[in-house]
Amino acid sequence: MNNGDKMTKVAIIGASGYTGGELIRLLLNHPHVEITDITSRKYDNVPVHKIHPNIRESNLVFKDKNPENLDADLVFTATPHGASMKIVPDLINLDFNVIDLSGDYRFRDTKVYEKWYGMEHTSDLKGVFGIPEIYKEEIKKAKLIANPGCFPTGAILASYPLVKKDLVSRIIIDSKTGVSGAGVSPSEVTHYPNIADNVNPYKITKHRHAAEIQQELGGFDEIKVSFTPHLVPVTRGIQTTSHSLLKEDNLDLTTDELIKIYQDFYKNEIFVNIMDKDEIPHLRSVRGSNYAHIGGFEIDDTGRLVVLSAIDNLVKGASGQAIHNMNIMEGFPEDEGLKFIGLNP
Amino acid sequence: MNNGDKMTKVAIIGASGYTGGELIRLLLNHPHVEITDITSRKYDNVPVHKIHPNIRESNLVFKDKNPENLDADLVFTATPHGASMKIVPDLINLDFNVIDLSGDYRFRDTKVYEKWYGMEHTSDLKGVFGIPEIYKEEIKKAKLIANPGCFPTGAILASYPLVKKDLVSRIIIDSKTGVSGAGVSPSEVTHYPNIADNVNPYKITKHRHAAEIQQELGGFDEIKVSFTPHLVPVTRGIQTTSHSLLKEDNLDLTTDELIKIYQDFYKNEIFVNIMDKDEIPHLRSVRGSNYAHIGGFEIDDTGRLVVLSAIDNLVKGASGQAIHNMNIMEGFPEDEGLKFIGLNP
Amino acid sequence: MNNGDKMTKVAIIGASGYTGGELIRLLLNHPHVEITDITSRKYDNVPVHKIHPNIRESNLVFKDKNPENLDADLVFTATPHGASMKIVPDLINLDFNVIDLSGDYRFRDTKVYEKWYGMEHTSDLKGVFGIPEIYKEEIKKAKLIANPGCFPTGAILASYPLVKKDLVSRIIIDSKTGVSGAGVSPSEVTHYPNIADNVNPYKITKHRHAAEIQQELGGFDEIKVSFTPHLVPVTRGIQTTSHSLLKEDNLDLTTDELIKIYQDFYKNEIFVNIMDKDEIPHLRSVRGSNYAHIGGFEIDDTGRLVVLSAIDNLVKGASGQAIHNMNIMEGFPEDEGLKFIGLNP
Amino acid sequence: MNNGDKMTKVAIIGASGYTGGELIRLLLNHPHVEITDITSRKYDNVPVHKIHPNIRESNLVFKDKNPENLDADLVFTATPHGASMKIVPDLINLDFNVIDLSGDYRFRDTKVYEKWYGMEHTSDLKGVFGIPEIYKEEIKKAKLIANPGCFPTGAILASYPLVKKDLVSRIIIDSKTGVSGAGVSPSEVTHYPNIADNVNPYKITKHRHAAEIQQELGGFDEIKVSFTPHLVPVTRGIQTTSHSLLKEDNLDLTTDELIKIYQDFYKNEIFVNIMDKDEIPHLRSVRGSNYAHIGGFEIDDTGRLVVLSAIDNLVKGASGQAIHNMNIMEGFPEDEGLKFIGLNP
Repeated sequence: MNNGDKMTKVAIIGASGYTGGELIRLLLNHPHVEITDITSRKYDNVPVHKIHPNIRESNLVFKDKNPENLDADLVFTATPHGASMKIVPDLINLDFNVIDLSGDYRFRDTKVYEKWYGMEHTSDLKGVFGIPEIYKEEIKKAKLIANPGCFPTGAILASYPLVKKDLVSRIIIDSKTGVSGAGVSPSEVTHYPNIADNVNPYKITKHRHAAEIQQELGGFDEIKVSFTPHLVPVTRGIQTTSHSLLKEDNLDLTTDELIKIYQDFYKNEIFVNIMDKDEIPHLRSVRGSNYAHIGGFEIDDTGRLVVLSAIDNLVKGASGQAIHNMNIMEGFPEDEGLKFIGLNP
Repeated sequence: MNNGDKMTKVAIIGASGYTGGELIRLLLNHPHVEITDITSRKYDNVPVHKIHPNIRESNLVFKDKNPENLDADLVFTATPHGASMKIVPDLINLDFNVIDLSGDYRFRDTKVYEKWYGMEHTSDLKGVFGIPEIYKEEIKKAKLIANPGCFPTGAILASYPLVKKDLVSRIIIDSKTGVSGAGVSPSEVTHYPNIADNVNPYKITKHRHAAEIQQELGGFDEIKVSFTPHLVPVTRGIQTTSHSLLKEDNLDLTTDELIKIYQDFYKNEIFVNIMDKDEIPHLRSVRGSNYAHIGGFEIDDTGRLVVLSAIDNLVKGASGQAIHNMNIMEGFPEDEGLKFIGLNP
Repeated sequence: MNNGDKMTKVAIIGASGYTGGELIRLLLNHPHVEITDITSRKYDNVPVHKIHPNIRESNLVFKDKNPENLDADLVFTATPHGASMKIVPDLINLDFNVIDLSGDYRFRDTKVYEKWYGMEHTSDLKGVFGIPEIYKEEIKKAKLIANPGCFPTGAILASYPLVKKDLVSRIIIDSKTGVSGAGVSPSEVTHYPNIADNVNPYKITKHRHAAEIQQELGGFDEIKVSFTPHLVPVTRGIQTTSHSLLKEDNLDLTTDELIKIYQDFYKNEIFVNIMDKDEIPHLRSVRGSNYAHIGGFEIDDTGRLVVLSAIDNLVKGASGQAIHNMNIMEGFPEDEGLKFIGLNP
Repeated sequence: MNNGDKMTKVAIIGASGYTGGELIRLLLNHPHVEITDITSRKYDNVPVHKIHPNIRESNLVFKDKNPENLDADLVFTATPHGASMKIVPDLINLDFNVIDLSGDYRFRDTKVYEKWYGMEHTSDLKGVFGIPEIYKEEIKKAKLIANPGCFPTGAILASYPLVKKDLVSRIIIDSKTGVSGAGVSPSEVTHYPNIADNVNPYKITKHRHAAEIQQELGGFDEIKVSFTPHLVPVTRGIQTTSHSLLKEDNLDLTTDELIKIYQDFYKNEIFVNIMDKDEIPHLRSVRGSNYAHIGGFEIDDTGRLVVLSAIDNLVKGASGQAIHNMNIMEGFPEDEGLKFIGLNP
């Protein structure tokens, strides 16, 4: 079904942050979408360009609106975790399709959520985990998408074929993220002199995204999955280094075979590029775009296998992936509004 | 004339540099353009993504081709100064429309070229200086566009209304540029440790772009124009601070009057945004886009007036402006293929 | 008088900010100084390395102490403007020598302070403006030093010989500063994504440091002095571009003559380096050091003269200069504790 | 033996690179050292500040000199691998003490060198691997020190107590380095736009430093050691994340016990700081200094243990460590000339 003439009305709840800004930036150039509402409690009646200074070519104005007053077919909730859980049930009751960018609906087992997020999970709704490369059929039929976290997107895309093919016994994800992942609010951590010329490992074994990564990669039999994030002096992008240990049976696996496995797995996926042997995924190649570049594919003498991925955390890792999910739900071409090529340099 | 259904075949000569890469990136999403040839002496038969790693969604391949073998309606020459002068006459003879991104055809007086570029000027052709906000009518009829330099674009847009209205006697342009302006080739200057945490004033009174700025701003009666560029740890963008001295008659000029003058001058220009009193143009608001933001508009006690501009040097300062010129020449909507909103953050 | 064996006890009031941290860092390696107290209202009893993570080799602990409890010969007040005015008179009454790093005692005319700082000036004390290259004799005899602002230090050192020699009629200072100048507290301005890949002109004609610069440079007959600062993606350093207009009589001045004037003026100054004709002052050459590099010295066809300076804003522009002043007051060698060479790269 | 009054004459061969510059910068402030010769084939007779613009307070001049003409007690060879092997035997024959900063003498088994460096090893001399925290007694008696690589220094300091105590079965080192590690020569890799806003994993399983790390960590029974480096937009510093897998017997190890093990191991080491539980080692805390900060010490549910280290690659990872080795060889206090506290911010 190519539903190319349909116009979808979308509202964005919590549109004043970085992911909200990206949704607006990208959707303004989407040929089948009309942005009907952008909401913000804090910036009621403020024109969009006072908050997102890059967006000057629209008349959008933030409004402090409740769900029942939204004029929309589909709603993006770019709200913090905890907040989404309180709004999404109303939106679903009002029969909106919903794409939630928070962590609230990402977990099949709400106990996992409660452990890692430290709060009670109060909603019965189940979201589809919105990685299109894995759950496309489920997304087509979904009313509620739980848009994945930025680190999990990079980590899962880099490692999923390994677990699907039962090649490895353990995965250690060492991720390096740009600072926009910390959001639009200033803090001691994001103070320029604390980021520049520095590398910040943080929440070394305790980052919430570990739970998402484990759910998707470790759900398979007996695979141990670990995750450590680092903040680097970059604005956009997540570079993921997935170190994994080959099972004893697979120690003779070659790089060529590995690349073939990845090419096959992603062969129908527009936004995933499997790189050649001599190529390294770079953030500068995906900046501002919805593409994921996957490469590396080396195996060392100890049986350690390295796969690398590069994504833009705000696009493929958040708002672009959300729009990709919308395109699938609404029957649009998958890359509609997302054809932008990364900025290099 | 809206010539919306026409497809224009374009070739890019010298497409392996940054401005070539930007032309490809932008034109691949232009609905009325087909890129038929990208040429490079050095990279004959190399696929585009080996040089521009962000461009993986096309089958373009560099070819070492001569003008007579190009299949095109319009040719962009992204060649160095001196080289353009040798190719462009052939292209014009072959009846291509040409947009030249070098300095070779920017000067009304070739003596000025010879003085600042230190080489003989060997071509009789005259180009139209391609700032659409000033020379739109000439561009419509042109066969050959001399696409302006990056510093001059930022400086002229920030200062032109001042000279047009005869408000000032002297202009000092203090510009800060990102490193992509130095091109794709590594050098001691662009070595990361020499740029990071540093500011490099260079060619303090002797930068070639001073001549272009003087031609456009100083051509008017008796205005003295000076220019000093600085390299800052930024990849894309030129921030221009135009300090000018009010003529004695105009010392009572107010910020509001000044903003009004700029709003009037640019009122029909899609890509120029005149900012409010409380706003500062920022590179992060125009990154990757063809927009110029102009603001500041303060006047101090000494009669010094400050206007600021921000552009992306590779887009509005080079390839985007070239495509804008193409749109005007070909009768397309001015912003076709250029609607992209800047990346912020 | 070389007072090499004397040990001076120093206290630092307000030692938790960047300038406080620099004072501690530098004074710990000063052979004739013992740091006896570091105070902070906010961090009472907190060990120094919890706030300044680089300083782990001392047992210093912040204390919330009043002036009468300080055990010191000399006190540095690294307090905000307004706060210094309330503490310094007590310190002077207690017979401490004081070096104040705020703006409170920098102005000969308190009316100027009140206009630019927007608050009443409530102290009768007069400080010596602590630029050792100009006021060394006064500093030797002073009880209270008003340590200059960071922008004024760079601007005055770059331009003072011009006004002293009556060469120019107007000076426009265009400065580019690193972010540490904004202090240790996070803000929207200093949020990493707002600084990176950006240039921020700010307080374009209204920065308080303009008043200091005008006091020192414009005090001479009839010279108009303007100032505009820019924030660049740099952590430490101020690069100053001083554009000035030669008086009619001096239009035949040459670069060589100009360099000679600067060499003569600074011939006895340890911390000022006058560069050769082919050299440009770079922040990376003075990073972490107390040196000022001055160069450029070009004159263009319009009679505009350009002098450039580079300093580390936290050292020569603040704490290093304060220690230099202390050395002069106490009779130590001028460069004691300040011999550190800049980090390059 | 405290040999405090002795003056040691040192020569630096190959002093025009970054490690040479750092040796000069640090040794000029060393109270017991006189730099007698700095050599360079390329810059014969060039004053030091033309190459190292931060070093303006000395009269040092590069000379193209042969070993027999050096006036020195001790020689630092800051020459590339392969070159050192040709010079060092002559220097040893001439009875100089030698500290070699190349890889040529780091391997106990020259076969390992020949495999990883791809060239024949032609010298019979054996160097002492110059990590003072492990080989101090050997260094005291050495004539030839093989100064360790930058990555190995960070990796070994972070992991050595684990292998010494037989706690782990496998170590995966994921390192992030500043660009100064790539040296002073410009290249496509170090071109500013290729580094900024990017992360570059490189030589993913094939970096030469893997061999050094394996020699020191894996030499113990049955420990598998892997290494992957990444280039990040930082000028100075190496942040090392050491992921290791606890042996089955040790799965109940706690963070407190781990910290205790590290504190004990390094209790006599001036330049190693073991951080508290709540602290993370940051590059900004060791910038420009010879300190190594070690922290992290977390263990996750899968039995993965994380230790982090931060060093300045040019100081503790190269020239500072070389001077530390010199101090030990010459009987000076270990931290003589190395007391400088890191620059933060």
